[in-house]
Amino acid sequence: MHKEDGKAQPEKNCDVGFIGLGVMGANLTLNLADNGYRVACFDLDQSKVDAILAKEAAERGDDSTPRIEGCSSYTELLSKLKAPHLIILSVPAGDPVDHVCNHLIDAGIKADDIVIDTGNSLWTDSVQREEQYKSKFIFFTTAVSGGEVGARFGPSLMPSGNPYAWTRIEPVLTAIAAKVDPVTGKPIESRTPGQPVTEGEPCATYIGTMGAGHYVKMVHNGIEYADMQLICEAYQIMRTSLRMSAAEIAKVFRRWNEGKLNSYLMEISAEVLEQTDPDTGMPLVDVILDKAGQKGTGLWTAVSALQVGSPAQTITSAVFARSISGLKEERVKASEILHGPEVQTLDDDAKMKAVHQLEQALYCSKICAYAQGFQLMATAAKEHEWDLEFGEIAKIWRAGCIIRAVFLQSIAQAYENNEDLENLLLDPFFADQITQMQSDWRESIAQATLAGIPCPAMMSALSYYDSYRTAVLPANLLQGQRDYFGAHTYQRIDKPAGKKFHLDWSHPDRPQVAVKK
Amino acid sequence: MHKEDGKAQPEKNCDVGFIGLGVMGANLTLNLADNGYRVACFDLDQSKVDAILAKEAAERGDDSTPRIEGCSSYTELLSKLKAPHLIILSVPAGDPVDHVCNHLIDAGIKADDIVIDTGNSLWTDSVQREEQYKSKFIFFTTAVSGGEVGARFGPSLMPSGNPYAWTRIEPVLTAIAAKVDPVTGKPIESRTPGQPVTEGEPCATYIGTMGAGHYVKMVHNGIEYADMQLICEAYQIMRTSLRMSAAEIAKVFRRWNEGKLNSYLMEISAEVLEQTDPDTGMPLVDVILDKAGQKGTGLWTAVSALQVGSPAQTITSAVFARSISGLKEERVKASEILHGPEVQTLDDDAKMKAVHQLEQALYCSKICAYAQGFQLMATAAKEHEWDLEFGEIAKIWRAGCIIRAVFLQSIAQAYENNEDLENLLLDPFFADQITQMQSDWRESIAQATLAGIPCPAMMSALSYYDSYRTAVLPANLLQGQRDYFGAHTYQRIDKPAGKKFHLDWSHPDRPQVAVKK
Repeated sequence: MHKEDGKAQPEKNCDVGFIGLGVMGANLTLNLADNGYRVACFDLDQSKVDAILAKEAAERGDDSTPRIEGCSSYTELLSKLKAPHLIILSVPAGDPVDHVCNHLIDAGIKADDIVIDTGNSLWTDSVQREEQYKSKFIFFTTAVSGGEVGARFGPSLMPSGNPYAWTRIEPVLTAIAAKVDPVTGKPIESRTPGQPVTEGEPCATYIGTMGAGHYVKMVHNGIEYADMQLICEAYQIMRTSLRMSAAEIAKVFRRWNEGKLNSYLMEISAEVLEQTDPDTGMPLVDVILDKAGQKGTGLWTAVSALQVGSPAQTITSAVFARSISGLKEERVKASEILHGPEVQTLDDDAKMKAVHQLEQALYCSKICAYAQGFQLMATAAKEHEWDLEFGEIAKIWRAGCIIRAVFLQSIAQAYENNEDLENLLLDPFFADQITQMQSDWRESIAQATLAGIPCPAMMSALSYYDSYRTAVLPANLLQGQRDYFGAHTYQRIDKPAGKKFHLDWSHPDRPQVAVKK
Repeated sequence: MHKEDGKAQPEKNCDVGFIGLGVMGANLTLNLADNGYRVACFDLDQSKVDAILAKEAAERGDDSTPRIEGCSSYTELLSKLKAPHLIILSVPAGDPVDHVCNHLIDAGIKADDIVIDTGNSLWTDSVQREEQYKSKFIFFTTAVSGGEVGARFGPSLMPSGNPYAWTRIEPVLTAIAAKVDPVTGKPIESRTPGQPVTEGEPCATYIGTMGAGHYVKMVHNGIEYADMQLICEAYQIMRTSLRMSAAEIAKVFRRWNEGKLNSYLMEISAEVLEQTDPDTGMPLVDVILDKAGQKGTGLWTAVSALQVGSPAQTITSAVFARSISGLKEERVKASEILHGPEVQTLDDDAKMKAVHQLEQALYCSKICAYAQGFQLMATAAKEHEWDLEFGEIAKIWRAGCIIRAVFLQSIAQAYENNEDLENLLLDPFFADQITQMQSDWRESIAQATLAGIPCPAMMSALSYYDSYRTAVLPANLLQGQRDYFGAHTYQRIDKPAGKKFHLDWSHPDRPQVAVKK
């Protein structure tokens, strides 16, 4: 290489630049290195740069050729990268993203370089950034699901932005993503540094133009809220109504996890229930305070569903279930004032039957929660002109993320069979499943209703199902009410769609008036 | 009076200035005149000024002294008003409000003059306007409920803003407001121009500092959504499961309207069901298309509930019920694919019993919907530092607005007995009612569940009740899940509140770690 002033010019031999070495960033960097990429990395906190170099050495042995190079400035980072540059950011959402972008501009980033934001940025901010930086570099985003472990050994990735940039990004993101056995739909996992999974279908697919990826990630989290709440309700019914111990319920969850309800959330629920608290010797679940926290994505999903008018009541009821759990002191007080029905003791046969019914109830409710999530994405996609491929989205959720489950294989299949499927409930497989299992589902909910066990998410799922399959809803009476008190008009079943009528309710003998709007 | 240039200076003898003579404005102006106020009115559209003068003459007779004076400019309007000026606006929300305010400033409005905005302004805009105009005049708002007829003969008014201004505004707004018999809690109504109701308790009370009034009005509308949906579900159960005709159901509603379910919405629901369509001879309800419209206030209430973390699931489910009603074509298609249970035919005794149970179910659900609305106002009030008096709010909703009902008398009583009541369900009267009636409520919902009739709002009300009265919810398992996959920590029932713990779930034998935050 050309030398100057006795100093060696750095070789431009790094494939990827990585900025921001927090927990997620450090793990993504190690994941990239495992997959053979040479990574130049930088963090404002130089100790984080040192830490990742030490981590790599510890994991791969001092004598192996290191793939991660530390940098002490933006300029140094750019100097080490092959052109055109590919740079990944893992910095807090908001101002820090722009801070880094502006430093990269100062350091000489070029118009055909790509910067991928992996943080939890608001998708509307990302849309603005794409526009703002377009003459300087290509701003791209990917949502990352799977937490710390996912980042290290394979996350689920939801990239969105310029489709031409994607062709350059794709090999990198698919390499580091979680992998799935395409036949079984189950994750292929490795938790050993230096031994990445290279076979199987990667959980990374181009979601759409800017914003789409983070929107889809948000809905993923909304579905996650519903899924968790539904499992909790099944637990509550077994615990309170069927008087089963935490250990007994863990066994049921283990059994369910072998079948159609197989999922990561089911598996960890069993593990949580099996855990003994060393301090008290009690099941740990019984010493955990029943006040649920939340970080906002479930709530954002519910708000978006309300705003675009997509009925996502199961997701919403899961959010409200967390709110009401927060009112612990009020609930304890209310429990002494508002007495419910006596809990009936069931014999073993009745209990076994109830547990069997509950499995179908949970499964049917889960179908509805997912149907709502996919319906919401479809509605939002129309509004924002995203061309979402729901089969692909289901596929990348089969591994690496919290809602991973074989169930998503069936959803992917449904959209592969019919990419214009309006609702999961109309897919022949799911329609058949739910039709067959509905009597158990109804029986479970009826029993919980009579026993006084709250199951807001299961009930909302059933009422979603029953509303969706009802040809004539009582919204006709509602439109009558609205026209009566507010002259809001109504349409008629025997007149062209959109034509509006009003009755003068104080003189109902007068003819109905066709209203021009 | 002092004369100049041969022109008579107008006498400053008008009590109130009124700007904006649309349907609501014109009716409020006539209402003011009926109550003895001299009103100077102005509209950019001079024909509206002429129209109201003609209307007054027609109603009160040409020989009576007119109380309404037309103006052709902001300046003329100010010139006719007694000082300090009191001016009421009824103009579209948004820019028109500022347009008028700025014209009034140009016309010479003074710092101690009051401008009351009666439109549907966003409360956050009003907060900004109060600040923006404070050196020029006093900006005040009042939310108006009751539509056209309410505006003319007595609306329910929810004023908020500067509390000192209220002392000057109070006599005017209480005069034009709806009136209630304080003993029965029923509206005292007159629909005769020139004969205003002067006895009874007025439905206007100072709600709080700026923004509070419109927030309370928004929640009123959210409750209205829930109330309407619950009535519709009762209708649907009778229509589909009990196979009753529209006329039969109307009779049931008439009977219910004599008892604890007495309300304006119940009354008009019966009237809608009694209405025959002259074109087809069918019940009108059967020719109305079952797609519900919405104008946004229900949705705003639901969004606010999510944002402040107050569980208002019955209001929210009513909003989603409207969304799902909009999917008419999908529902018709789904009804052919997703078959529910067979509807059982009941004998007359069973039917009578079911109708009786349904009355209790509707009443219990209604209590929960209102409990959610009041809980939401309480939560929002804490956040925004409004000092809301819930007893007074219940009182002003007893007449003039859509949810008017004797039921509100019981709510007012509950808050009079205990102004710090945390939840309506904890009031001894309502607790007793719902405890007594819960078995009928549960039975109704269980039957609908088994029969496949959607009742999202009733179900959500029941699960709200059951969640609220449950001392230990399964949020303990949920916190275990969250700590497992995301290290989100949990609290323990045996440790001080707020102290957070984390278990290393991959090494669960290690001690739990107290997390500092």
